[in-house]
Amino acid sequence: MTKERLYLFDTTLRDGAQTTGVAFKLEDKRRICKVLDDLGLDYIEGGYPGANATDTELFASKPDFANATFTAFGMTKRAGRSLENDVGFQALLQSEADAICIVAKSWDYHVRVALGITNDENLESIAQSISAIVASGREAMLDCEHFFDGYKGNRDYAVAVARTAYEAGARWVVLCDTNGGTLPHEIHDIVTDVVTVVPGTHLGIHTHNDTENAVANSLMAVRAGCRQIQGTLNGLGERCGNANLTSIIPTLLLKSEFAEHFETGVTPARLRTLTHASRVLDEILNRSPYKHAPYVGESAFATKAGIHASAILKEPETYEHVAPESVGNTRRLLISDQGGRSNILAELDRLGIAISKDDPRIGNLLEEVKEREAKGYTYESAEASFELLARRALGEVPKYFTVDSFRVMVERRHNAVGDLVTVSEATVKVFINGDREPLWSVAEGNGPVNALDGALRKDLGRYQKYIEGVELVDYKVRILTGGTEAITRVLVESHDTTTGARWITVGVSPNIIDASFEALLDSINFKLMKDSAPAEHVKVVSRY
Amino acid sequence: MTKERLYLFDTTLRDGAQTTGVAFKLEDKRRICKVLDDLGLDYIEGGYPGANATDTELFASKPDFANATFTAFGMTKRAGRSLENDVGFQALLQSEADAICIVAKSWDYHVRVALGITNDENLESIAQSISAIVASGREAMLDCEHFFDGYKGNRDYAVAVARTAYEAGARWVVLCDTNGGTLPHEIHDIVTDVVTVVPGTHLGIHTHNDTENAVANSLMAVRAGCRQIQGTLNGLGERCGNANLTSIIPTLLLKSEFAEHFETGVTPARLRTLTHASRVLDEILNRSPYKHAPYVGESAFATKAGIHASAILKEPETYEHVAPESVGNTRRLLISDQGGRSNILAELDRLGIAISKDDPRIGNLLEEVKEREAKGYTYESAEASFELLARRALGEVPKYFTVDSFRVMVERRHNAVGDLVTVSEATVKVFINGDREPLWSVAEGNGPVNALDGALRKDLGRYQKYIEGVELVDYKVRILTGGTEAITRVLVESHDTTTGARWITVGVSPNIIDASFEALLDSINFKLMKDSAPAEHVKVVSRY
Repeated sequence: MTKERLYLFDTTLRDGAQTTGVAFKLEDKRRICKVLDDLGLDYIEGGYPGANATDTELFASKPDFANATFTAFGMTKRAGRSLENDVGFQALLQSEADAICIVAKSWDYHVRVALGITNDENLESIAQSISAIVASGREAMLDCEHFFDGYKGNRDYAVAVARTAYEAGARWVVLCDTNGGTLPHEIHDIVTDVVTVVPGTHLGIHTHNDTENAVANSLMAVRAGCRQIQGTLNGLGERCGNANLTSIIPTLLLKSEFAEHFETGVTPARLRTLTHASRVLDEILNRSPYKHAPYVGESAFATKAGIHASAILKEPETYEHVAPESVGNTRRLLISDQGGRSNILAELDRLGIAISKDDPRIGNLLEEVKEREAKGYTYESAEASFELLARRALGEVPKYFTVDSFRVMVERRHNAVGDLVTVSEATVKVFINGDREPLWSVAEGNGPVNALDGALRKDLGRYQKYIEGVELVDYKVRILTGGTEAITRVLVESHDTTTGARWITVGVSPNIIDASFEALLDSINFKLMKDSAPAEHVKVVSRY
Repeated sequence: MTKERLYLFDTTLRDGAQTTGVAFKLEDKRRICKVLDDLGLDYIEGGYPGANATDTELFASKPDFANATFTAFGMTKRAGRSLENDVGFQALLQSEADAICIVAKSWDYHVRVALGITNDENLESIAQSISAIVASGREAMLDCEHFFDGYKGNRDYAVAVARTAYEAGARWVVLCDTNGGTLPHEIHDIVTDVVTVVPGTHLGIHTHNDTENAVANSLMAVRAGCRQIQGTLNGLGERCGNANLTSIIPTLLLKSEFAEHFETGVTPARLRTLTHASRVLDEILNRSPYKHAPYVGESAFATKAGIHASAILKEPETYEHVAPESVGNTRRLLISDQGGRSNILAELDRLGIAISKDDPRIGNLLEEVKEREAKGYTYESAEASFELLARRALGEVPKYFTVDSFRVMVERRHNAVGDLVTVSEATVKVFINGDREPLWSVAEGNGPVNALDGALRKDLGRYQKYIEGVELVDYKVRILTGGTEAITRVLVESHDTTTGARWITVGVSPNIIDASFEALLDSINFKLMKDSAPAEHVKVVSRY
């Protein structure tokens, strides 16, 4: 049976970005673009060029996409203004987007009250805008805002909006449940009607989770004929979130009702990177991954007491609805974790560490990684710390130096002229291995970690030249269990201004200074290791 | 039109309790029973008497229920054993439960492999068990485990299990999607078939959220004929959670497709206590409420920039799918953004701060809030800091005390036996306003912020009694611009162990210690303000 093509449209960087507390930097957006492209998504709505500086810059120099169509979001031309004089619209046309998705009112009530124009004027603006986008050589899409409420209020007008866009040449007409209040069976009934006017091959669905039905609504829309689904990774979005692509994609590929009839840009191999993609977004947002997330959550395949591990392992499909590996997740067996070994081997291979599959030290390394992760370490992003851990375990890394002690002080007091000032100062005592005499360094900073970093990098004796030009470019803190009896996890990103290389290291401790210290140490040692800094005086053996 | 009765069955205390990390104490269970009963739920599955001490005790002395039927959970009689000799089953019969819900295999595969008995032996156990419960004068229910997979594997057997229980006198036969992998349209089709064998008036549905369709599956089952829905508050449950009653109940009452055809034990007045019920469970579990939860989440009705508060306030139904007050929630107008003035007024009103709409100080307050937000402050969650800011601006808050200086030190060194240890110590010098002599406090902690918090709360002179019992329960750090030249924003959540009150405060600075200090000060001052702590010696004027 020939399968129909289903298109996936990601709006994490646009609709998702509107979530309060979310503020993507340019580098974050580029990184997410890559993750989404690698996943095989068809459209990536990068943002709203012209509306803010970050988005304008993102669309000024298009990232390299292997699969996805780079899409810009914007508004339909304002009524009463020509296209040429609509600054916002022109910004869209001038961007490097390959597709442009504009939003328009499709509820006559909003046309009258929010826009203050007639129904026909609204249709005219839509037709002109879509035509202009098409004429510029790009794919044009229309987001029909509040479509389902608009349909319930005035079916003919809502449908007219959709038809107008389609006839003007829109590649996609997207039905949006903007306030998230429509139920699954209603979505099905309404879409069934709309496909008699706009063919499903040109119809998209964009739902919100205000009744906790966004995923079901998307699936229902597909069953009724839609062939594009809009959503976000991890369901990111304001209020109660957007349709969660992280939950929808596996269902489309792994449930026969969909897998037998449709294909997407996501292959089984790409699907296995889904859990990783989900975690990358969490890490960029500095959020704890949601343990109970469908498919990709840490607990999604956690077996409960009462089901013997052996029963699960023999016939997992009688207890699990899908295989965890298919989405890059693992089965958490309370007794033991079987999948761990192959995970570690894949990682080592990816880092270019040559080791035989049967090397007994792999088991030791796996144990150590699990213990550390139980303590709060995460190696999903802190690959440099992982590589350091692995190579140290295999006896490849000398101990270049030892920090004998450090002291960090933050003092807030009145200065000589009576102003209240805060001073942060750090003192570090270091022994370069092989040397008898320690090196002391003192540094001030704008905070305790900044001061400690300054002191650590001030004087490393003969190793100093290897760390010149290395700067700290990002610093993330996560409190892992809440309250001040918590574990702090720190992620530090370092950048070598000479080579452009970047690497991320991690530190964990109840004490934020200790955690930062650990991450900073890893950062320095990683650089020394990568540069094969000489360490003649030190004997190195494997730890296992 | 006569409405049909829909029954709501809560299993927060049984299925929800199986979530890893959840351990309800007896008092917790009693408290939750009250909340669920007040909500108007029909069945409260309190637990598994005989399986653990807490549940056995809970069922030994039944709580006073005004509405709900107290239900015990357990296993079908073991095959090959008489009812009298099945200890677990007898424990059920001896409990004070008014209804007993037993679980049985309904997938022939499990009957053979997990139980090791024949299909008929399984049916026989079910019939005997249900009959025994009925004979004991209670309502009997059967949870048909893995029903939907069982149906797909062997329709006739799964249906036979359901029929057997019904014919033996079960009040409810509950179809369970135990591994959570069934999709909404499948649920609809399968239930449509099953109601030809067991009438919908005796059919229940129990779903899990492994594909993020638990809510939709429950609604689909009702549309196909089920008249009992099983779920948990806040969707609590292992793996990806149970069907979320907090999302289902409002839909049943507020969406006409259901409200016109069904009635439940939840009245509109009881529905208004839903948000409170949700928060009580979070508080018992010591979890931060999920901001994006449908209906009851803090962000569920948060407006975004671009929609003026005035437009929303005039005709909220054109932007909101239901009225927030109907579920006991409130509309949160984000304090920053376009609609500034009306937003601020609405916030002040919500906080109970009486001020005339035209008071010139409102403009000043708005300016100050915008400046602070540009610096990194956020007041969406830190409402206590906002209230403090507003009331201070209006001259309502005295300056209770002044921190003259503080010093925080973190030192890592070898101790007397040569181990590397980290010590964090903070010293604070405070003038209680009106006093000549300062108070010094010193505290140690597991980190610099913990130490500073300890020192600040150690001795506040005559104000000490107001802060006894206040503890820090959550601490969040966000680095706002990256690198160590960054701004740090700290959010602190405080909890009054005496009253149960919680409040969140914010601090911003390039220095994490300063930022934490600011948030901690706000926390203390907020408490003193709320308690109207006396401050006779201090003259207070408005800042504007």
